[in-house]
Amino acid sequence: MTQNIYDNPAFFAGYSRLPRSIEGLAGAPEWPALRALLPPLSGRKVVDLGCGYGWFCRWARPQGAAQVLGLDVSEKMLARAGAMTSDPGVTYARVDLECLELPPASFDVAYSSLVLHYVGNLSGLMTTVHRALVPGAHLVLSAEHPILTAPTRPGWSIGSDGRKTWPVDQYLVEGRRCTDWIGSGVIKQHRTIGTYLNLLIGIGFTISRVEEWRPTPDQIAAQPTLAEELERPMFLLIAASRS
Amino acid sequence: MTQNIYDNPAFFAGYSRLPRSIEGLAGAPEWPALRALLPPLSGRKVVDLGCGYGWFCRWARPQGAAQVLGLDVSEKMLARAGAMTSDPGVTYARVDLECLELPPASFDVAYSSLVLHYVGNLSGLMTTVHRALVPGAHLVLSAEHPILTAPTRPGWSIGSDGRKTWPVDQYLVEGRRCTDWIGSGVIKQHRTIGTYLNLLIGIGFTISRVEEWRPTPDQIAAQPTLAEELERPMFLLIAASRS
Repeated sequence: MTQNIYDNPAFFAGYSRLPRSIEGLAGAPEWPALRALLPPLSGRKVVDLGCGYGWFCRWARPQGAAQVLGLDVSEKMLARAGAMTSDPGVTYARVDLECLELPPASFDVAYSSLVLHYVGNLSGLMTTVHRALVPGAHLVLSAEHPILTAPTRPGWSIGSDGRKTWPVDQYLVEGRRCTDWIGSGVIKQHRTIGTYLNLLIGIGFTISRVEEWRPTPDQIAAQPTLAEELERPMFLLIAASRS
Repeated sequence: MTQNIYDNPAFFAGYSRLPRSIEGLAGAPEWPALRALLPPLSGRKVVDLGCGYGWFCRWARPQGAAQVLGLDVSEKMLARAGAMTSDPGVTYARVDLECLELPPASFDVAYSSLVLHYVGNLSGLMTTVHRALVPGAHLVLSAEHPILTAPTRPGWSIGSDGRKTWPVDQYLVEGRRCTDWIGSGVIKQHRTIGTYLNLLIGIGFTISRVEEWRPTPDQIAAQPTLAEELERPMFLLIAASRS
């Protein structure tokens, strides 16, 4: 199964202090770009793969979503998610996405935010998701960008000329990466953009949009530290439809 | 118009000494991967955007292509291309791809190898190409990978730990880059993968394959210096079809 580091007490405590944990969607700078990829949710059945605290699930309902199913492997996160809503249109379930089962043709929208780079068997998961979607349904996802996940020792470098760079190695050597985000020993799966896209196309999705997220000038003005995110992309956003 | 550096005598002389200039397609390590993206060419009308010495045009004819039109801005390259064939099925024409005009619905396959990163108005060119293709036609292209074109000072770096990396900056700042490949002052256009794909999708192409080219184990065994190409991708390969 996927490493369940979010149930590690130290990791969970650290993650809980991130802006996106405290402020929800408003604390995630890529959210406006991700939201722009979503279809209208009115009357739609939505599944959120790796829902965490359930911010997206709770946001989707006032947008008109008929039902939202939030799935996550973390007991701690689901406990918090469940405590934040009494809406009968939102359901949470604890599952390992590596062995997810869903009824066929039962959702109109599948959504996943910053989770798929933890999943080893992405092909299996996406095959399940494709089958669980109705024809014409939408898939909207984000993952850590491969430039971020590739390096054997990820981090910024300042050259003797003062130039700030993100040194890349092993970009074309896909697979497991063990990094020190929040706690130590977080296991991620490094995949190229091509691998993400070809996997989806091969399963029967049609790619409709690919964003390598960048902060907007307004975001940088409001939060100047975001300027460094122009140097190398943090997030990969993909929109696709089920053929 | 696009910079026509291939007609600069010093650049042309330098380019003429590259393996891919001397050996043709066999000297281009990404060629087997690019070839694998091509549809069967038998009976097809093919246009090659930026044909250079015409290696691909001449290769396409024995594959059964009915007609091949090779387009390039370089007078010197077209002169050499023309001298290498007397096949009436191969035609070369000198054009600036920035202001290309082609008759509508007149080609089955559009091909372009390592040229589009020189083109400023890619949207205009691809709109023209889309119109010139018949419905269901194929587009197969390669370009320098954005990780290669992004840095303000492209080059390898060896860290104090001996780790060889490719330092990336300005990845999300698209536009003109002036680099010192072969001669100095080669002007390229840096675009993200997302920009290439969204441009094609927006015009009406369906993406069928995206490859961030990597050398195969056999290629590395035959030419060990290719191993460094696993550290960061050199080439982006895209296959699409006209909707």
